[in-house]
Amino acid sequence: MVEVAAGIDIGGTNTVIGLVDRNGTTQSAGSISTTQYVDIDEFVMEISQEIDKLMTTAEVKLVGIGVGAPNANYYSGSIEDAPNLRWKGVLPIAALFKGHYPGLPVVVTNDANAAAIGEMLFGAAKTMKDFIVITLGTGVGSGIVVNGQLLYGHDGFAGEIGHTIAVLDGRQCGCGRRGCLETYASAGGICRTVFELLASSREPSELRGISFQDMTAAKVTEAAKHGDKIALETFEKTGKILGLKLADAIAHTSPEAIILFGGPTKAGALIFGPTERYMNEYVLAQFRGNVKLLSSGLPDENVAALGAAALIWQGVG
Amino acid sequence: MVEVAAGIDIGGTNTVIGLVDRNGTTQSAGSISTTQYVDIDEFVMEISQEIDKLMTTAEVKLVGIGVGAPNANYYSGSIEDAPNLRWKGVLPIAALFKGHYPGLPVVVTNDANAAAIGEMLFGAAKTMKDFIVITLGTGVGSGIVVNGQLLYGHDGFAGEIGHTIAVLDGRQCGCGRRGCLETYASAGGICRTVFELLASSREPSELRGISFQDMTAAKVTEAAKHGDKIALETFEKTGKILGLKLADAIAHTSPEAIILFGGPTKAGALIFGPTERYMNEYVLAQFRGNVKLLSSGLPDENVAALGAAALIWQGVG
Repeated sequence: MVEVAAGIDIGGTNTVIGLVDRNGTTQSAGSISTTQYVDIDEFVMEISQEIDKLMTTAEVKLVGIGVGAPNANYYSGSIEDAPNLRWKGVLPIAALFKGHYPGLPVVVTNDANAAAIGEMLFGAAKTMKDFIVITLGTGVGSGIVVNGQLLYGHDGFAGEIGHTIAVLDGRQCGCGRRGCLETYASAGGICRTVFELLASSREPSELRGISFQDMTAAKVTEAAKHGDKIALETFEKTGKILGLKLADAIAHTSPEAIILFGGPTKAGALIFGPTERYMNEYVLAQFRGNVKLLSSGLPDENVAALGAAALIWQGVG
Repeated sequence: MVEVAAGIDIGGTNTVIGLVDRNGTTQSAGSISTTQYVDIDEFVMEISQEIDKLMTTAEVKLVGIGVGAPNANYYSGSIEDAPNLRWKGVLPIAALFKGHYPGLPVVVTNDANAAAIGEMLFGAAKTMKDFIVITLGTGVGSGIVVNGQLLYGHDGFAGEIGHTIAVLDGRQCGCGRRGCLETYASAGGICRTVFELLASSREPSELRGISFQDMTAAKVTEAAKHGDKIALETFEKTGKILGLKLADAIAHTSPEAIILFGGPTKAGALIFGPTERYMNEYVLAQFRGNVKLLSSGLPDENVAALGAAALIWQGVG
């Protein structure tokens, strides 16, 4: 009988559930829709039924439940006003799961923090005690690990590097402010940079035929691989702003490495190259060349659920 | 017989030595010149003799030695390439003191970190586990406390908020880069802002008669108290840039409070007012209004030596 932790990644569209053993192997996995449940209790019940179903097929023993979700607070065990979820206000997600699994530990945190613990237990940060994970996707999240512990801060919301200001009075952000790193380095931010460059230059580009609505970071990557100058310049500009803010992050917590995670990192050297170059240009001399910029060491499949399950395995030690 | 820790603050000009009991009371204090010793060994011997002298007059028992110094590394116990000290290279300051006091604990860290521990044990952060101390002076230093522990990071140099970039391609900094927070929010940075404003406006000002060399933050404060518009605008601009970077710092570590420390804070509401206003304008909504901006709770006299001694009392618990 293999011991497993259930890792639950609550996304805006789908919720992925994985049963993960202490070596980081996903024994069994499934998913449900996030959007079809009017009531949060109904949603948690459906996840619990999915866990139970996965357990019967896998012959495993459940030792705890880890939940990664947007705007989740480790201290309170709640999701608080997540803009991408249909349920508003404060959702006591840990308490709801404890109702279904009395006596089992339930740990809740945001998805970037879960990714960081996943990297520490099973991925690129296995030997590290001080590192930062930056998740690039619809948004830009971050999980900061200091001395082997996730940095939660006074209120449980530490590690919002995506919402530091990269450009004063810059692009409008979903958070209500302007110029956040997220508006430049997220998948959508990369697309916004494409359109700025298309507007300001007369350079021919295969991206000129794609609407704002249809543009994706993957299409920009594809164009850059063809040598498209607008696409290449987009990655250069993205790397400049991301590198600048990573240099700031290094000055705060002096990590051994920064790990980039998520869709846009599939562009490989196109994004890592300029980001690392500018990071080292903008960082204080004593850190220059001393902080590694790495890609995720976690497998692509079920990665968010793996990180969520790692929250439990970290506690078990 | 009162137990005391020796707190040593090594400054560019003077080195202050205080014997501090576990309640934070300085039982005895003295100072020596930092600049007159050709050899670092000779300098450490002179400090040790001063400690011994202070002990005979105070009837105390020495339990350890805490050293705060520029560019000091907690992990290595060394001062590394401090631009403001005459001795170059790596100075094994902890080892040298251990030679004079075998068996006693010796802790070395930079002056801003020492100030942070001082605030936690004896000052404005007594009840806090997560806070940041920003020292405004010749430079801008910072000490970040997370979960009751100083944040040292992978290499012992964490907490360099003064060397995050506030203005891309901005003012030249002593660190060799451009636009560091230090070039705007230090005492010298405040003076630089005065001259930018004097140059760009035609506003009459009592500061127009003072040379660059003779300008001080204290004179700017004095002028602002007389209602001088250039001086008032200088504090407004200083607060805007400092507030912006404090907002970034909050997004990293989510502190309960930020404590400002050092000469320019004597301007009181002139500097605290705009800094707090802009900090709350630029910070992510969930932190807005939730992070206190405080002035130091340590007494002015011997404050740096008090912080250095606190390094020992923290360890004693």
